[in-house]
Amino acid sequence: MQVAVLAHDSFPDRAKTAVGLLRYGDHEVRALIDRENAGERVVNHLPDVQDAPIVASMDDVPEVDALVIGIAPIGGAFEESWRADVRAALERGCDVLSGLHDFLEDDEEFAELAAENSCTLQDLRKPPEDLTVAEGTAGDVDATVVTTVGTDCSTGKMTASFELRDAARERGLDAAVVPTGQTGVAITGWGIVVDRVIADYAAGAVERLVQIPQGQDLLIVEGQGALAHPAYSGVTTSILHGSAPDALVLCHEAGLEAIHGYESFAIPPLAAYVDIYERLAAPISDASVVAGTLNTSGLDDDAAAGAVAEYGEAIDAPATDPVRDGVPENVLDAIL
Amino acid sequence: MQVAVLAHDSFPDRAKTAVGLLRYGDHEVRALIDRENAGERVVNHLPDVQDAPIVASMDDVPEVDALVIGIAPIGGAFEESWRADVRAALERGCDVLSGLHDFLEDDEEFAELAAENSCTLQDLRKPPEDLTVAEGTAGDVDATVVTTVGTDCSTGKMTASFELRDAARERGLDAAVVPTGQTGVAITGWGIVVDRVIADYAAGAVERLVQIPQGQDLLIVEGQGALAHPAYSGVTTSILHGSAPDALVLCHEAGLEAIHGYESFAIPPLAAYVDIYERLAAPISDASVVAGTLNTSGLDDDAAAGAVAEYGEAIDAPATDPVRDGVPENVLDAIL
Repeated sequence: MQVAVLAHDSFPDRAKTAVGLLRYGDHEVRALIDRENAGERVVNHLPDVQDAPIVASMDDVPEVDALVIGIAPIGGAFEESWRADVRAALERGCDVLSGLHDFLEDDEEFAELAAENSCTLQDLRKPPEDLTVAEGTAGDVDATVVTTVGTDCSTGKMTASFELRDAARERGLDAAVVPTGQTGVAITGWGIVVDRVIADYAAGAVERLVQIPQGQDLLIVEGQGALAHPAYSGVTTSILHGSAPDALVLCHEAGLEAIHGYESFAIPPLAAYVDIYERLAAPISDASVVAGTLNTSGLDDDAAAGAVAEYGEAIDAPATDPVRDGVPENVLDAIL
Repeated sequence: MQVAVLAHDSFPDRAKTAVGLLRYGDHEVRALIDRENAGERVVNHLPDVQDAPIVASMDDVPEVDALVIGIAPIGGAFEESWRADVRAALERGCDVLSGLHDFLEDDEEFAELAAENSCTLQDLRKPPEDLTVAEGTAGDVDATVVTTVGTDCSTGKMTASFELRDAARERGLDAAVVPTGQTGVAITGWGIVVDRVIADYAAGAVERLVQIPQGQDLLIVEGQGALAHPAYSGVTTSILHGSAPDALVLCHEAGLEAIHGYESFAIPPLAAYVDIYERLAAPISDASVVAGTLNTSGLDDDAAAGAVAEYGEAIDAPATDPVRDGVPENVLDAIL
């Protein structure tokens, strides 16, 4: 699929979906829409990702199949300043994909334009309507299933998932990410945003997801939240049990001491945290933390190397910062 | 509030809500509607609960404020054979409370009748629309908060909650149950059915619930599901963390070896199960399993006494079958 990605005034630092699409997506990005940087190219801001021209509006985009909203502002609201671009896309017959909390299909103008031009509004946060409770069958999946788990939200679970996928592919394996959040869903074009599912069906949604890919050697399930998170631990548990993994990868951020936004809740000591994950996983599937990823973006190279080594010792497993150092052989070996 | 309770063809064994209302509810039950046993009294079927006449239909019910649907059939569907009673209640200006999956307010006839007669349809499974993510403030509640947790679904968490409440009240404490399932909500007239909430908001719903009662000495939060349950562990975790309890009560059924309906999943050894609950609770609140309840309804008195003693040893805490033996001093002492 050929796509344009909307990322007004936010590229690259506040456009996680856009960056993910450029770095990990299977779609060809023909243009990035950002009025602030129009006239430049993606490569001027981000090396090592798919390059594309940056344009001011949908009017400057060459022929594409779809427009993807590449920004997820806090609260997930639609910004009216994007309306002209969405309208223009629909008038050209392009589908529009959005991971916003505000559903595009609830917008009267967009719904009418989509109907008139025979294109679809895909609200990626909207769960399927036929979800059910888990049946406990996720463990029957033939592929090796690895689930990324975290010490907090935003500790790199999605990034780790895609980097592990790419490393496995480089080794010749058929590997796929099983996406459970809006960015992962937008990048891959499939998946379910599990935190939006009715609590009773959350594990069932994940169980369904791991049974969709066929014939893969390796599935990497994108985790959400964290078991020590006061708000999101239920979603984390549903993914942990719903995916019935063979192994876990623990994702952490160097120096993180408390849950972000919930500063009175300390991150448990890492060895104890590993223990909580493994003991909770055990009744459903015998999954250990076999590897770790560490976000060291706040450190210089020397400090990062030290932090990764220390982290590996703390969790008693091979570790890496996949963005800084890639996925070394020993980490990939550990999860297979 | 004076109520009638509908329990056609199901009383008492398949009418959990009706029995709960009679045993633990604060409402005066003026009639039980059950065409099968009409003419008898509740006391003929259930000793030790509030007594009431059993009548054939709403037409035979004396003046009441509300009709409560006291049955929760598998699947939670509304049965058409109840329509005449609900219609009659609304025509008399009574509110109708239902914990069914099928919402009464989506039924055109009922919605019209309710509007015409200025009464309300209360669909107890419907979550409030303004829920949010948890803020991590449940631990600020002044009351002692005790959360019931289970080794499986249907191991007596709701019953234990109400029995503990009643024992605490007998000791002169101001105690309340915080209901998280449809039966508990129907019995008390407040609460949120947490398994119906969007996964992201499940802990937030519980956090809100524990902050509603004011001035109590003791809150007993009704748990749901079980941490070793392949489908419902996410809801269990959300209640465990969302209630930030001071202590846990583990509810088990004598002889239970596997998760009901998921027979390939063994119940973990009890000491290990306690350990999982405590380790998962720890990052949010330092809550231990301080007592246990055991459903021994399948055993004779001697075997039951032995099973309770053995259970107490396994979880290393005082234990009781609250239905058979009530709540002894040492169990109540342990949770306070």
